[in-house]
Amino acid sequence: MVLDAHLDTPLVLDRPGFDISARHDPMHDYAQIDLPRMREGGLDGGFWVIYTPQGDLTPQGYEDALAHAWHRNSVIDKMMTDHADDFMPATTADDAVTIVAQGKHVVYKSIENAYPLGMDITRLDAFYDAGVRMVGLVHMTNNQFADSSTDPDGPKWNGLSPLGEALIQRANELGMIVDMSHAHDVALAQAIDLSTTPVILSHSGAGHLYEHPRNVGDALLLDLAASGGVIHINSLSAYLKDLDTDPARGAALSALFKQLHENPLKSEADTKAFLKARRDIDTKYPPDFASFDDVMAHIYHAHELMGAAHIGIGLDWDGGGGVDGLQDITGLPNITLAMREAGFSDQDIGAMWSKNLLRVLRYVEDARNLP
Amino acid sequence: MVLDAHLDTPLVLDRPGFDISARHDPMHDYAQIDLPRMREGGLDGGFWVIYTPQGDLTPQGYEDALAHAWHRNSVIDKMMTDHADDFMPATTADDAVTIVAQGKHVVYKSIENAYPLGMDITRLDAFYDAGVRMVGLVHMTNNQFADSSTDPDGPKWNGLSPLGEALIQRANELGMIVDMSHAHDVALAQAIDLSTTPVILSHSGAGHLYEHPRNVGDALLLDLAASGGVIHINSLSAYLKDLDTDPARGAALSALFKQLHENPLKSEADTKAFLKARRDIDTKYPPDFASFDDVMAHIYHAHELMGAAHIGIGLDWDGGGGVDGLQDITGLPNITLAMREAGFSDQDIGAMWSKNLLRVLRYVEDARNLP
Repeated sequence: MVLDAHLDTPLVLDRPGFDISARHDPMHDYAQIDLPRMREGGLDGGFWVIYTPQGDLTPQGYEDALAHAWHRNSVIDKMMTDHADDFMPATTADDAVTIVAQGKHVVYKSIENAYPLGMDITRLDAFYDAGVRMVGLVHMTNNQFADSSTDPDGPKWNGLSPLGEALIQRANELGMIVDMSHAHDVALAQAIDLSTTPVILSHSGAGHLYEHPRNVGDALLLDLAASGGVIHINSLSAYLKDLDTDPARGAALSALFKQLHENPLKSEADTKAFLKARRDIDTKYPPDFASFDDVMAHIYHAHELMGAAHIGIGLDWDGGGGVDGLQDITGLPNITLAMREAGFSDQDIGAMWSKNLLRVLRYVEDARNLP
Repeated sequence: MVLDAHLDTPLVLDRPGFDISARHDPMHDYAQIDLPRMREGGLDGGFWVIYTPQGDLTPQGYEDALAHAWHRNSVIDKMMTDHADDFMPATTADDAVTIVAQGKHVVYKSIENAYPLGMDITRLDAFYDAGVRMVGLVHMTNNQFADSSTDPDGPKWNGLSPLGEALIQRANELGMIVDMSHAHDVALAQAIDLSTTPVILSHSGAGHLYEHPRNVGDALLLDLAASGGVIHINSLSAYLKDLDTDPARGAALSALFKQLHENPLKSEADTKAFLKARRDIDTKYPPDFASFDDVMAHIYHAHELMGAAHIGIGLDWDGGGGVDGLQDITGLPNITLAMREAGFSDQDIGAMWSKNLLRVLRYVEDARNLP
């Protein structure tokens, strides 16, 4: 069974004209996942992400974000109801087994950025009821719960805020996996100590290979492993190695995505204009990709450091992932081949593709303990 | 095809232990709809309601209500994903035809009480994207959009507020049916004038038979019919005729529902305690039901007044509906029998059971016109 811990495809699902049952080209349509390629690449599913961009820490900001998050949740549900023969909702580890046995695809839900919960952590309960089983506390900048690894102003809370600690406790009580990708190292270390269940990184890399704030160094990875946690390896090029990309490219892309967030696509014509604007940026400032071997290097390093039981796959599809030789999920079998060539056992390969993630989910389920 | 314009069953769906595929007893389980009885009663589906109780007209009130409404939406989606072989999402009039042809049940979505949209009517767009095709402006008390027919303080806006007018315009642009059940007569009259598409009453009665504020008088019903609209007849006993019910019963039920709203059921034990409390109220203050003939009297009166093209069925199941001889949907065939005995043609009966509602939906779809 092949699961990915962090599928950002819900960002693509509500693009006017997007059809998940049709095949897309990653470099022309900017869509890395659809049913034909899931079948070809052997991706059975994973955690489909309710992502909310960070905004102001104000009542209005929280209200807007909450509406945004619930809408994103409904987009995932719409995919399942529109394609009930292909996708099935999963909330327990056993569900994945049953769903794959029926030849269908597995839809777990996760939250990336808990910002929409505002100052009321019990808002998490309704997301649990809606099927969410993983919560990522923070994204690119600090929020009310935790410091981000990439906030340009540096840490605000020195790790977790008191509300962030309460949120982890609530996730433990409900039976949700705590995802610390994007969090500052100090917040990650605190979460490992505080959480009564193993913490995961849903899409991160090895700081030993490239000291980027989104990656995690060896000492902390060993702490993660010692607590039963799992790092899922990312394929976002700029986190895998030091790339000499024109900063103007990043600025142009940021401007485009800001515009997209403020003016959501309303029609297929809007979608076409957006995709053309993205291609124009690629032409003007060509992307600088890491390679397939760079992804494998992070996997190998994590494997050498922690052993197979603490590694998984979270390639950040439709959220920035993609390298030369692995621009969409059709390349997943090459990861398996490479792992085989590197001498990994079938059992280890199976652990990395899904069993480690399901082990954590099972732990979290069993620990569910509402007061 | 048999559709009901107002199914409050989403209120029941997330009761811990409730299983829509199991059969329930209306007077013991307080659940009037499930799959076995949909099959027995021949109910193909209808509009499943995202209902939000009215709260304070404050930013905090709006935020709480928005979270509540999206959660209710996710409860409907969960029913569809958990029972994908039985329920299918419908957003167009044609969808109902296709779904019924497959032997499945039809799930349109509607909003009852637009209060959760706060002061930002563009929040309606995300609900459209999530599949909502009907919006009811107001509930038991006045809100930011319209006067309610039952606010103890009387009208606040003299009909629609300016924001309510803008909301109707947005619903017209998006392609959503405007539902004026619960609205004050003045607001209904204004909506009929203002809306560019026919307005409906999803669950109301004839004021000529019983002058209750939730019912609508003949003159206004004729205006509704002249604009192409449809009244869907309700079965809530207290609106059908003057009943001599002990006021203590209403007070006890209100207190129970207030408690339920503030402390949602968390476990099957909670559900059992809640249902027992309801049964205890029924024992202490026995309910006083109108009769099957009273429901039929409202249908006959509307038919005599407006003709078959402007009548539909919205019996308020799981929202207060139910009379002696019609306590759940297993009794629906008796309505058809009674209409036949009253001399209604098969064509008229078909119009009332679904075709009128679908005609309005088709009109609204065709008029969709985003600026």
